[in-house]
Amino acid sequence: MNYQDDGFMLHTDLYQINMVETYWRDGIHNRTAVFDLYFRHLPFGNGYGVFAGLERVIALVEQFGFTDSDIAYLREIGYKEDYLAFLKDMTFTGTIRSMQEGETVFGNEPLMRIEAPLAQAQLLETLLLNVINYQTLIATKASRMMQVIGSGTALEFGTRRAQETEAAIWGARAAYLTGFAGTSNVRAGKLFGIPVSGTHAHAMVQAYQDEYTAFTKYAETHKDCVFLVDTYDTLRSGVPNAIRVAKEFGDKINFIGIRLDSGDLAYLSKKARGMLDEAGFPDAQIIASNDLDEETIMSLNAQGAKITVWGIGTKLITAFDQPALGAVFKLVAIENEQGDMVDTIKISGNPEKVTTPGKKKVYRIINNANGKAEGDYIALQEENPQQQEKLKMFHPVHTYISKFVTDFTAIDLHKDIFVDGKLVYTQPPLASIRKHVETGLSVLWDEYKRPINPEQYPVDLSPACWEHKMKKIEEMMPPSAR
Amino acid sequence: MNYQDDGFMLHTDLYQINMVETYWRDGIHNRTAVFDLYFRHLPFGNGYGVFAGLERVIALVEQFGFTDSDIAYLREIGYKEDYLAFLKDMTFTGTIRSMQEGETVFGNEPLMRIEAPLAQAQLLETLLLNVINYQTLIATKASRMMQVIGSGTALEFGTRRAQETEAAIWGARAAYLTGFAGTSNVRAGKLFGIPVSGTHAHAMVQAYQDEYTAFTKYAETHKDCVFLVDTYDTLRSGVPNAIRVAKEFGDKINFIGIRLDSGDLAYLSKKARGMLDEAGFPDAQIIASNDLDEETIMSLNAQGAKITVWGIGTKLITAFDQPALGAVFKLVAIENEQGDMVDTIKISGNPEKVTTPGKKKVYRIINNANGKAEGDYIALQEENPQQQEKLKMFHPVHTYISKFVTDFTAIDLHKDIFVDGKLVYTQPPLASIRKHVETGLSVLWDEYKRPINPEQYPVDLSPACWEHKMKKIEEMMPPSAR
Repeated sequence: MNYQDDGFMLHTDLYQINMVETYWRDGIHNRTAVFDLYFRHLPFGNGYGVFAGLERVIALVEQFGFTDSDIAYLREIGYKEDYLAFLKDMTFTGTIRSMQEGETVFGNEPLMRIEAPLAQAQLLETLLLNVINYQTLIATKASRMMQVIGSGTALEFGTRRAQETEAAIWGARAAYLTGFAGTSNVRAGKLFGIPVSGTHAHAMVQAYQDEYTAFTKYAETHKDCVFLVDTYDTLRSGVPNAIRVAKEFGDKINFIGIRLDSGDLAYLSKKARGMLDEAGFPDAQIIASNDLDEETIMSLNAQGAKITVWGIGTKLITAFDQPALGAVFKLVAIENEQGDMVDTIKISGNPEKVTTPGKKKVYRIINNANGKAEGDYIALQEENPQQQEKLKMFHPVHTYISKFVTDFTAIDLHKDIFVDGKLVYTQPPLASIRKHVETGLSVLWDEYKRPINPEQYPVDLSPACWEHKMKKIEEMMPPSAR
Repeated sequence: MNYQDDGFMLHTDLYQINMVETYWRDGIHNRTAVFDLYFRHLPFGNGYGVFAGLERVIALVEQFGFTDSDIAYLREIGYKEDYLAFLKDMTFTGTIRSMQEGETVFGNEPLMRIEAPLAQAQLLETLLLNVINYQTLIATKASRMMQVIGSGTALEFGTRRAQETEAAIWGARAAYLTGFAGTSNVRAGKLFGIPVSGTHAHAMVQAYQDEYTAFTKYAETHKDCVFLVDTYDTLRSGVPNAIRVAKEFGDKINFIGIRLDSGDLAYLSKKARGMLDEAGFPDAQIIASNDLDEETIMSLNAQGAKITVWGIGTKLITAFDQPALGAVFKLVAIENEQGDMVDTIKISGNPEKVTTPGKKKVYRIINNANGKAEGDYIALQEENPQQQEKLKMFHPVHTYISKFVTDFTAIDLHKDIFVDGKLVYTQPPLASIRKHVETGLSVLWDEYKRPINPEQYPVDLSPACWEHKMKKIEEMMPPSAR
C-alpha cells in the first residue's frame, strides 16, 4: 500500500475519471467550463460562516497531475492506454477565483468559481469539496464558539477525537484563524506556526502515584505550570496540592493556574476560585475542559462559573452537532461547439436545489452611512453594481421581498487565485487572516451573529441574474412539464 | 509550512512532550508502563463495535522517531538542547498487544495494551487515539448499516463530505472491511485494493445540455453503464432516456441500471422499477443515494422501495449522528523505584470513569454447546480462565448480576503486534479481515446485533480483577474521603 509518489489526483470519485473519458473520447474535454462551489445552508443554525481551506487547495492544485503509480493503478483496473496517455500529460491551465480565507460567507453564494477545461475542473471537484467542506465547517464552528466565549481564551484540544490525522491539524488551523489562541497539536504548531499549549495529563499524576509529588516534579522541570487537579479529588486533593506547590516554588515557577477536566465545572470552578484567591493567587487561571461546546459554555457562564480559559476538543474538531457541510460543485456554464459560452442549469424537485446559471460575481454591499453590510449581491459577470445609482436587492426565493440601497460600496469578494493555470495569489499570513475575520464580523449587525435564532443575512440575486435563471428553467424543463 | 521530513511524532498533544521532559529529567522515563486503550460506550446505541485502525497504527509505530525538522521546531519553541538530544535518539522498544482488525468489540475492554518505557508510551497516546477512534467508529457505523442492508449491496460515496482527506480513505477502508462492496474514492482503491465504483454525475448531463445525448455519449465510451436519471425530471425524462439508450445499444453495453439521487426514493424507485421491467430490463439495478443512513434505509425498505444498491456518503463517512468515539488511553501499571510493577488507578466522581488497574487480558467466552459467545471476560495477566472448571461471570457495575459458565472456550482476543519494539504481526489481507468480521458476528446472538434497543453484551471482570480494583480504590482515595 505504500507508494513513494502517492498524490491527490486519484483522491476523487471514480465517476470523474469515467466522465472525463467520455469527454476526451468525444473531443469536448477542452471546452471551457465554469463551476460554482457553494453550500446551501449555514451549519449549526449559525447566522454566518467563515471560509477556510484555500491554503490547502492552493497546495493541492499546484500538485495537479497523475503520478506513475496513479497511471499504473488505472491501467490495472482496466483503462486503455490511449486514455492513460492523455491523463498522464494533463496539467492545470484553468482560472480559480475564490473567497479569501477568513471571509464571512453565507448560503447559496459561490465560495469559489472554477473556470477551466471541462476535464480539469471535473477532476478537481471531489478534492476541493473534501477540503473546503471540512475546513469551512470547523472555522464556522470555532467562530460561533468565539461569539459565546467573547473576551475569554479558547484552546483547541481535539486531536484524539478528530476524524483521522488531517482533520486534526487543519481543524486546529481553522480554529486558530477564527480567534482560538492556540492548539495542543504540536504538529499543527510546526506546520502552520500556531501557538501550542499544554502541560500535563492524569497519567503523570498516576505515574508518580501521588499528586503532590507529581506537581512538584513538574514544577522542578518547567517554568510555566498548569496543574491538572481532578485525578483523585478536585477540591480535597487537587486544588490544595496545586496551591501548596505554587507556594513552595514561589517565583521559581510561573503558576499559570489549574485545569478542571471532569465533574461539575460550575461548582468546582467557583470553589477553586475561592481557594486560589484566599491562598493569594487571584491571577491564577482556571482552565476547563471536558466535552465543551457553545451551549455548555453559555450555561456555565450563566451559572457564574469562574472559568477563564476554555479547552475545547471533540465538539469543535468534529463539529459534533453537524459534522458535515454540504457544499456542492455545480456546472453553471460551458463552451459549445461554436466556441460560445452557454449557461447551464440543474433543475430539481426541490426548488432550493435549482442551480443559478451563468458566470457570476459576489459583492458585499456596504452601506456607506454606517459601514455595515446590507447583504451580499450575486450579479452576472458583466454587471457592475457599483455603477448603479440605486441597487435593487431582491430575495432569491421570496421574490416579493426587496429593498433599494443607494449610498453603498460594492466589494467583489472573490480574489484571483490561479489565472490560466498560474498561481497569482499570495496567501496572507495567519495573523492577517485572523484580522480579516474580525473585520468581516465587524461589518455585520449583531443580529446576524447571535448563536441562537440569528436574523437571516440577505444573499440576493441581481434582477438580471434572476431573470436569466427563470428563463433557463423554462428552457430546460422537459416538454411534458412546460 | 512544507517539510520534506514531516512525520507523525509531533502529531501529539504538547502536554505529552512536557510530561516526558519531567520523566526524563527525573530519571523515570524508562520505567515500564502499561496503558489500556478502550472506549466506555458503544456509539449509535449499537450493540457491538468493530475494531479498525491497526494497519495504520502499525505503519505509524514503525516510523516512531523525531525528524530533524521536529527537533528544530521544538528548539524554536524553547526546549533545551539536553532534552532535545534525548528525544532525537528515541526509538520504540515497547510491546503492543491489540485486537485484530475486524474484531467485534465492546465498551470497557482494552482494544490495545501498550507496555513500554513510560516516555515512549506517552508519546504514542494521542496519535493512537486519533486513528483508532475514527476508524473503529466508521467500521462500527458501516457494520450497523450492513445489518439493515442485509443481502443488498452498499457502496461508500462520502469523500466530498469527509472530514479532510485521511478520513475519506481510511473511512472507505473501514466500510469495506465490514461488508461494503466498494468505494467511489479511487485513491482508496489504489492504496488498499478496494473495489472502486462510479459512472457519471449531473455535470455530464449538464455538459451535454441534453440527457439523451449525455447517456449516448457515455454508452459509446464505456461498457458498464449506470445512468443518473434525476438531472431534470426522473420519471418524465431520466428513466425514459436511460431505457431508450439501453435499448439502442443492446448488447454493446452492459446496462447495469439507473441511479436516483434526489426526490422521494420510495415512490421513484417503485415507479422506475415498473418502467424498467416493462421495458424488458428486470435485472437492471436501482441504485439510490442522497443522505442515506440506517434509519432511512429501514424506512425505505418498509415502504417497499425497489432499491438494490445503496450509495452511502455523509452519514457514514462522518458517523453523522455521533461523529466521535471516546476511546481513552489509561495508565494501569507502572514500574516503581525498586523495579517492581505497581498497578495504578484513576478515581473519578463518575463511577464508570474509574479505571481498572493492572495488566490484563481480554477473553471471549464461547459456549461449546452452541458456539455462541457468553460474554467477554477481563482477567489479570496471570489468570488462565480456560483452566477453571466453571467461570463466574460478574457484571462490572451491577455486581449482584452474575452467572456460571462451564463448558466453554476462552479465546484470548489480543494478538502480539510489537514485542520489544519489533513488529511480530503479519497484517492479514482485507479479504481475511472481512471474513473475520463475519465470523465474529456469527457467534453473537441476534439480540446483540439489532440496530434498535439491542441487548447489552456482557463484558465482565474476573473476581480477582474486581477485588483488585476495589482494593486500589480504597488505597488511593484521599485520606479525608476514606
